[in-house]
Amino acid sequence: MELPTRVSLREVGPRDGLQNEDPVPTAAKIRLLDALSATGVGRIEAVSFVHPKAIPQMADADEVWAGATHRDGVRYSALVPNSTGARRALAAGFRELEVVVSASEAHNQANVNRSVAESLDDIAALIDLVHNDSGPVPATVEVIVSTSFGCPFVGDVEPARVASIVDRVMADGADRIAFGDTTGMATPRRVTDVLEAVRASQPDLDVLLHFHNTRGTALANILIALQYGVTQFDASVGGLGGCPFAPGATGNVATEEVVHMLHDMDIDTGIDLLALIEVARLAQELVGHELPSGVLKAGPRLR
Amino acid sequence: MELPTRVSLREVGPRDGLQNEDPVPTAAKIRLLDALSATGVGRIEAVSFVHPKAIPQMADADEVWAGATHRDGVRYSALVPNSTGARRALAAGFRELEVVVSASEAHNQANVNRSVAESLDDIAALIDLVHNDSGPVPATVEVIVSTSFGCPFVGDVEPARVASIVDRVMADGADRIAFGDTTGMATPRRVTDVLEAVRASQPDLDVLLHFHNTRGTALANILIALQYGVTQFDASVGGLGGCPFAPGATGNVATEEVVHMLHDMDIDTGIDLLALIEVARLAQELVGHELPSGVLKAGPRLR
Repeated sequence: MELPTRVSLREVGPRDGLQNEDPVPTAAKIRLLDALSATGVGRIEAVSFVHPKAIPQMADADEVWAGATHRDGVRYSALVPNSTGARRALAAGFRELEVVVSASEAHNQANVNRSVAESLDDIAALIDLVHNDSGPVPATVEVIVSTSFGCPFVGDVEPARVASIVDRVMADGADRIAFGDTTGMATPRRVTDVLEAVRASQPDLDVLLHFHNTRGTALANILIALQYGVTQFDASVGGLGGCPFAPGATGNVATEEVVHMLHDMDIDTGIDLLALIEVARLAQELVGHELPSGVLKAGPRLR
Repeated sequence: MELPTRVSLREVGPRDGLQNEDPVPTAAKIRLLDALSATGVGRIEAVSFVHPKAIPQMADADEVWAGATHRDGVRYSALVPNSTGARRALAAGFRELEVVVSASEAHNQANVNRSVAESLDDIAALIDLVHNDSGPVPATVEVIVSTSFGCPFVGDVEPARVASIVDRVMADGADRIAFGDTTGMATPRRVTDVLEAVRASQPDLDVLLHFHNTRGTALANILIALQYGVTQFDASVGGLGGCPFAPGATGNVATEEVVHMLHDMDIDTGIDLLALIEVARLAQELVGHELPSGVLKAGPRLR
């Protein structure tokens, strides 16, 4: 079986993780970001520029980003809900932005109170806004298609529907595509189905996958995706975070569990696993409760 | 990718699970066994006949087995540590016995205070004893090779060493072989390595795999094993149990997480998933603390 020799992990603990925990002080967020930047991880989702009334956990995004070390060689990204957020992210200096649309109509309505069609129009305008920004390097937009592997409200989501959203946003100029397993409904079979549907019309698209470990399948999902040639995954240090808008959702797959499995397969991530486990311990202290990561609890298989 | 269409799961919660929990009353054990027998599961590891001073949790094995319903179509097995235990199991009516040897010398010494060579000699005698038993149907012995994917004391275990133990016990008449991931050190890579090493000399051997989810890899391990054609797995309802002799060990993979993933892949197990989740809830009540199973907490991906 041909597997990639290198995988690009994006650490989402500082944003996706902390956004779904009780608020922590700005200094704690900066401490977590700086510790992660020093692990060798290549990409970090640092903050989101959402309305502070909607997500009070991210109200200090500007202060966090201004206070954090921006390490050479690390790609930092920010999640934005709309053009207002995109302008804030660009003004703060971000060149990699992410925006979300749900593959499920019901979930998109519940999440942002808009139809998928309305969100897709908004995203097209947002992509134009970002691409027209004059900055030191071109600014880019990643479109995250959430509930790609299932929706807590309607159940299965047709892979063809996911693929058609990808076709639309690619036509509108999206720079990158990610698929979100918003409430842990992804399984190896669903991952296969979505990847095959998307490849039918976008054979060369290099996608990023974002899994939750709600039902224990996260590493199995990553394994099957690797076999399909996927080389980009999100993960959250310690398993921080989840999705506050979806019932039954639990945390993101823990970065150290992903790194542990990948390194054991001789797949390079650039990450120092022991350093990362120390950051998971720090994250646990900062949020003040036990995190779900098994590798944090038990350590790597070899000590 | 060719996958099996049917998998045989062995439920080990009543033995491996409860053996690693604080003792529960005999009536609770019988209740758990009977509830599991009604889920459609094909095999159950019911009890172990170990010395009550070594494992007080299993001191009432005879009473549990005498009190439980022996359902037609379910294969029940008992773990035995030695010939004394084997005689007890046979006297109680069991026709499927399991015996353990560690692939790691250090782990075998720590576990049973014997060398691997001594244990293998004991197992050869035990197999003879069991095969010579006169009973309604032939009595059989499964040899479980524990620490097959790594040892908490010495680290990696050579797959060739695992394979040579298999060759020896097969030559001595073992009826079935299982590989135990005693402290959750199995990864997809280690599973591949062991299966390839064993197949080199035993190409047609149909093995059973027993995984712990200590580092999040259990379902990924099962996925890669399915791709290698393995069709037999142990799992423990709710994720009950672990290994009391090994540092850092946490529970067995939860049966309902395995069933959930397999059924989603259209792989038949014969098990009623919703009934099994109810038994996981019962198991949680009987032991009086939260069990680690994600599918127990969140329910199946489709409700």
